[in-house]
Amino acid sequence: MKRLQSLALLAIALCLSMPAMMAQSPIMGFSDEASKSQLQLEQDYDKLLKATNLDEWMKYMTARPHHVGSPYDKKVVDYVAAKFKEWGYEVRIEKFDVLFPTPKLRLLEMTAPTKYKAKLIEPAIKGDESSKQIKEALPGYNAFSIDGDVTSELVFVNYGIPADYEELEKRGISVEGKIVIAKYAGSWRGIKPKLAAEKGAIGCIIYSDPRDDGYYQGDVYPKGPFKNEYGVQRGAVMDLPYAPGDPLTPGYGSTDGAKRLKISEATSLTKIPVLPISYNDALPLLKAIGGPVVPANWRGALPITYHIGPGPAKVRLKLEFNWDLQPAYNVIATLKGSELPDEWVIRGNHHDAWVHGANDPISGLVTMMEEARAVSILAKQGHTPKRTLMYCAWGAEEPGLIGSTEWVETHADELREKVVAYINTDGTGAGFLGAGGSHTLEKFFDQITHVVNDPQKGVSVFDRRNARNIANGQPSWSHYKLSALGSGSDYSPFFQHLGISSFNMGFGGESSGGEYHTMYDSYKLYKRFKDPTFQYGVTLAKVAGRTSLRLANAEVLPFEFKHFTKIVSGYVDEVTKLADKLRKEADSHNKLIESGVYDLVANPKDNFKTPGPKTPVPYFNFAPIENALKNLKNKASEFAMASKKGISNSANTNKLNKVLKSMESKLIRDHGLPRRSWYKHHIYAPGFYTGYGVKTLPGVREAIEQKNFDEVTEQITILSEVLKDFTANIDAAIKLMK
Amino acid sequence: MKRLQSLALLAIALCLSMPAMMAQSPIMGFSDEASKSQLQLEQDYDKLLKATNLDEWMKYMTARPHHVGSPYDKKVVDYVAAKFKEWGYEVRIEKFDVLFPTPKLRLLEMTAPTKYKAKLIEPAIKGDESSKQIKEALPGYNAFSIDGDVTSELVFVNYGIPADYEELEKRGISVEGKIVIAKYAGSWRGIKPKLAAEKGAIGCIIYSDPRDDGYYQGDVYPKGPFKNEYGVQRGAVMDLPYAPGDPLTPGYGSTDGAKRLKISEATSLTKIPVLPISYNDALPLLKAIGGPVVPANWRGALPITYHIGPGPAKVRLKLEFNWDLQPAYNVIATLKGSELPDEWVIRGNHHDAWVHGANDPISGLVTMMEEARAVSILAKQGHTPKRTLMYCAWGAEEPGLIGSTEWVETHADELREKVVAYINTDGTGAGFLGAGGSHTLEKFFDQITHVVNDPQKGVSVFDRRNARNIANGQPSWSHYKLSALGSGSDYSPFFQHLGISSFNMGFGGESSGGEYHTMYDSYKLYKRFKDPTFQYGVTLAKVAGRTSLRLANAEVLPFEFKHFTKIVSGYVDEVTKLADKLRKEADSHNKLIESGVYDLVANPKDNFKTPGPKTPVPYFNFAPIENALKNLKNKASEFAMASKKGISNSANTNKLNKVLKSMESKLIRDHGLPRRSWYKHHIYAPGFYTGYGVKTLPGVREAIEQKNFDEVTEQITILSEVLKDFTANIDAAIKLMK
Repeated sequence: MKRLQSLALLAIALCLSMPAMMAQSPIMGFSDEASKSQLQLEQDYDKLLKATNLDEWMKYMTARPHHVGSPYDKKVVDYVAAKFKEWGYEVRIEKFDVLFPTPKLRLLEMTAPTKYKAKLIEPAIKGDESSKQIKEALPGYNAFSIDGDVTSELVFVNYGIPADYEELEKRGISVEGKIVIAKYAGSWRGIKPKLAAEKGAIGCIIYSDPRDDGYYQGDVYPKGPFKNEYGVQRGAVMDLPYAPGDPLTPGYGSTDGAKRLKISEATSLTKIPVLPISYNDALPLLKAIGGPVVPANWRGALPITYHIGPGPAKVRLKLEFNWDLQPAYNVIATLKGSELPDEWVIRGNHHDAWVHGANDPISGLVTMMEEARAVSILAKQGHTPKRTLMYCAWGAEEPGLIGSTEWVETHADELREKVVAYINTDGTGAGFLGAGGSHTLEKFFDQITHVVNDPQKGVSVFDRRNARNIANGQPSWSHYKLSALGSGSDYSPFFQHLGISSFNMGFGGESSGGEYHTMYDSYKLYKRFKDPTFQYGVTLAKVAGRTSLRLANAEVLPFEFKHFTKIVSGYVDEVTKLADKLRKEADSHNKLIESGVYDLVANPKDNFKTPGPKTPVPYFNFAPIENALKNLKNKASEFAMASKKGISNSANTNKLNKVLKSMESKLIRDHGLPRRSWYKHHIYAPGFYTGYGVKTLPGVREAIEQKNFDEVTEQITILSEVLKDFTANIDAAIKLMK
Repeated sequence: MKRLQSLALLAIALCLSMPAMMAQSPIMGFSDEASKSQLQLEQDYDKLLKATNLDEWMKYMTARPHHVGSPYDKKVVDYVAAKFKEWGYEVRIEKFDVLFPTPKLRLLEMTAPTKYKAKLIEPAIKGDESSKQIKEALPGYNAFSIDGDVTSELVFVNYGIPADYEELEKRGISVEGKIVIAKYAGSWRGIKPKLAAEKGAIGCIIYSDPRDDGYYQGDVYPKGPFKNEYGVQRGAVMDLPYAPGDPLTPGYGSTDGAKRLKISEATSLTKIPVLPISYNDALPLLKAIGGPVVPANWRGALPITYHIGPGPAKVRLKLEFNWDLQPAYNVIATLKGSELPDEWVIRGNHHDAWVHGANDPISGLVTMMEEARAVSILAKQGHTPKRTLMYCAWGAEEPGLIGSTEWVETHADELREKVVAYINTDGTGAGFLGAGGSHTLEKFFDQITHVVNDPQKGVSVFDRRNARNIANGQPSWSHYKLSALGSGSDYSPFFQHLGISSFNMGFGGESSGGEYHTMYDSYKLYKRFKDPTFQYGVTLAKVAGRTSLRLANAEVLPFEFKHFTKIVSGYVDEVTKLADKLRKEADSHNKLIESGVYDLVANPKDNFKTPGPKTPVPYFNFAPIENALKNLKNKASEFAMASKKGISNSANTNKLNKVLKSMESKLIRDHGLPRRSWYKHHIYAPGFYTGYGVKTLPGVREAIEQKNFDEVTEQITILSEVLKDFTANIDAAIKLMK
């Protein structure tokens, strides 16, 4: 009674909606009647989900290391394929032979001022049997580092992101000819060697500082889930923001007969050798670095004073790799649509891991499998979805989204033609729903978040997520807000290369740890610290399952454009403000140089160098975008009005769905983004210097950030054309509704 | 040429004033003609200052530990007295026998889950001879901790300030019957045992976390100036915000015949035993604490996961002290004024140290001595200041401003009658001028900051200080802004007890370290890392010397009231906003409890307890203050206009000076602040729960903060009366000018 009363108060006081209220309103894309049967179907679906399945399957698939090309990866593939077959899916395994370098020689030693040879091992943990399978596992390394043998002084570069190099420049410190040592985090790892090489460094070491995911955050494994002193984060360092996928077949599938570049021609490999290490191995190196003390916000949690260098610490880094092709297996399980077999809803999660991968990716894969199992039972009971549903277990995601990218590149034409949406998951934990995706489906997704309940609290996953906003002093959400997608999982080829509406989702916030890409991402750790009873795995199956089923069964595809317009409007605000901010900063910085303030403040004991002037930022003509946005706004409203009335001529439904399905593709341009044509989406892209991190309106935003001022105007033109085409397509949809 | 040009630009672009411009304008309180001779005097004064004197005297006075009651403290006293005599001052040594507990027994051991006995030593440092004088030195302890022998589980309480106990309550953790371990910093140290005892703890350990002044900040001694693993900060923990001075003679001087309380009657001793330790000794204890992981902003820089407890770490803390009276010697050196011998300008700095005290207090003391030496030469040349100048080297400052407080309490009537202003220094370093004081003298002081140059940069100390504001993105200063004085040095009895206008000043920003109150605050460290050539010591002598000389020579005392009014106006804004903020916070917090948001967000795995409701904050009638402020504003302007015209009847000058000298005393009330009547100033006081940290408009502000809402209204009435009296006194001054 107390609980009920307080929830009612919550709903009233904070304008949250009640699951019950939402359940009575029709589902987007469904008539009142169709809504009813869909809701019934979802009730039945929920009842079929069994947490014990997730547990059993995870236990099997994480029993041994199963990286790309390993024997156990093939076992996992066969296991997944057999399950889908058993459930009645039409299953095929599509194999691509792709470049996957593995370490042949890893040497890191400090040669001055004292000697130290990095151990480069993750010892077995008592009580976690899988951590003993060291021989079968890939050791700590970064895939797509080039071979190399370099010796030089060390420079500590914090996270090794652009802002850090600005700090170095202020101090007159160059990394030219040096080896940099950077902390993990702050950006996607591949940015660190990329930027270091651009700045002239000849080698790159990346380590996990305990401040970011070690003892500073919580107890370390095996006492707690955080990274212990030996944990090493493996990971790819190819130039992902340039293009994911097999570096030898850029932009096309690595099919059997495909032309493959020579390794020397592959542009997305790193330019310098790079190696990840534990903080146990990093500590002696960092201790030996001299020079200025680092700025306050560079400091980690090791018990030392962090210095920048260069030197006197000097290291040798020698790396050699096996540059072999390895099989990336994609398991594709299809349930043909009962009414619209040529309209596809695709659900995907990768299966390859860096080691055992209990969290990444198996926690997401078992969720997807349980969705598919439940759907197959519904199908057998006569409820085959209208549209075709495909479940894909991707191979070779870890080295660079390779399995999914090659598959998408191989089948690009068919996918452009047929796919309604792509729904991705990857590692998932417990706590709060996190979801990103196409904002044309935000309102659609919001409805789902109100009808699936949090397993611990008995309120909707929306209400729990929103309670966190409120408790943190952030504004209460009127609806579930999808984040913008950057990169880092298999939605990228669908979304940013082909322009297919996409989602990525999972649970987190109560399952943090430091196991990511280490030897310790084990079943044992997952069961102790992540989602022990798989209650959130089942909850994710409810959310992602509804997302797939509603898209597959909708009478009219549930796209709408007011949310999208509002979001893009916000992005436009951001970029105009960004230009203003950078202009002000440059002007005031240059004034300070001119007036000598930096000199006056500097401590003569420090090796301070007056910073150079910043390029002044001109004013830009944003009017073309504003005008395009205004028309978009009008058409989005008109579409919403028309949607309320419904379609007058139902013969047009199929045509309308075709138009709606093509909406996201209007946001791409075949020429892609400047200097990275693989990325074709003009609203969302991973940042060229952030990696996974999204840059919205990437053409315009990055031109401003990178001070390519001529390009800003070009990109404004392109973006306004993109918005115009998108608006014209809405208009086409509106016409079909009248 | 480049430099000149850029400085001109600086001045023009940023509205900074040029030393030259100021030098041409008359000095506040001086006629045009008198200004000229005063400026000439100051030129002569500057020429007399010798950095080598500061060096020589510091070397002598820091040769051995010289805490209260030590043989070498008496040597220092005699040395200082002899110097003043040599320079021609009339010198007397006023001795007060005051309570000064020293350690007899210090035992700290962990009894569970493992055994550990704290070492409680600061080992000698190779290359710093003075650190070897361990037998003569006081070891690490907190003066005025009570005796005790307690054993209990540990609770880690972060800094042990009120906000930290709120976090504990959220987690349902009590310190009742426990021993708390708190980090140094975040408040004055005495707050930690005071608050712990209020919360029911039975013992308190304070340690220096390397995050605050150890390796996290920079290289540790002897490589750098920061605190090494063994450094222990000594210090008093008497209830200073209640009252400083000898705890046995509260409010009156500890003269020979004075009635002394029994120790059991002394209310300002701690209620529980308290001991400071190094982080070397703290680490085993902190490692052994279990329970929840601390909030992110509680984390220090030790290589562990910090937990709150309670237990399983259990410690025994046993402390016994010698509760002896010790002599506090004040050296009082007087130069009788040539025209107004009964108007006194007092300059002071203490001489007692915790150990060698090179920085604290000798760096300030040698500065003051060099000022006095130069002034004595000027006097011999026929330029004895008009008013009496007194130089005071205080004893027993470290245990609780005892020497100065007893002196002030003993001579209260005479001081109230005669003192124009008190100018304090204490430890000083290098870099940027920091000064706090009475805002009725802000404009006066601002002039000085424009005519004294920074020794490294050749611009005024004002311009260098302001350049830092600008470089940090803060607003450019139109004038030097005095901070408000809290407590922590010998100005407190003059300022907050008697209502005498005061200053406290020093240099810092380029001389940070962790030596404060440790065995390592040595001559060696000072010379390597603080102000190696004493160039900033000499600069401080120029600033403080001008402050004394101008006050001593002014025709009309240089008080004005527009600055003060603006400042107080700002404080009134702050307290009204504070009430609004607390009201909003309480309301929104209570709404969140009511609506169940905290429950929804909480992770069931954590031992989360829904916080209790906060007392709603009513609206207060601030009108009496606003009205008083309005009148004050008018009178302050009227006074400024009258000042411009000058005094029509010069016979009134003496009367006017009398009124002006009494201005600050109008801001005190004999009944003092609630529950601490020793503090009588109603504009500035040290915070009851911050210690050194100032609380402006303390009566009103602390009543709001501590939710004594009835008291808010009372204090508003008192404050508005105080402002009215102050305004009436301005009016009296105006009348004398007409």
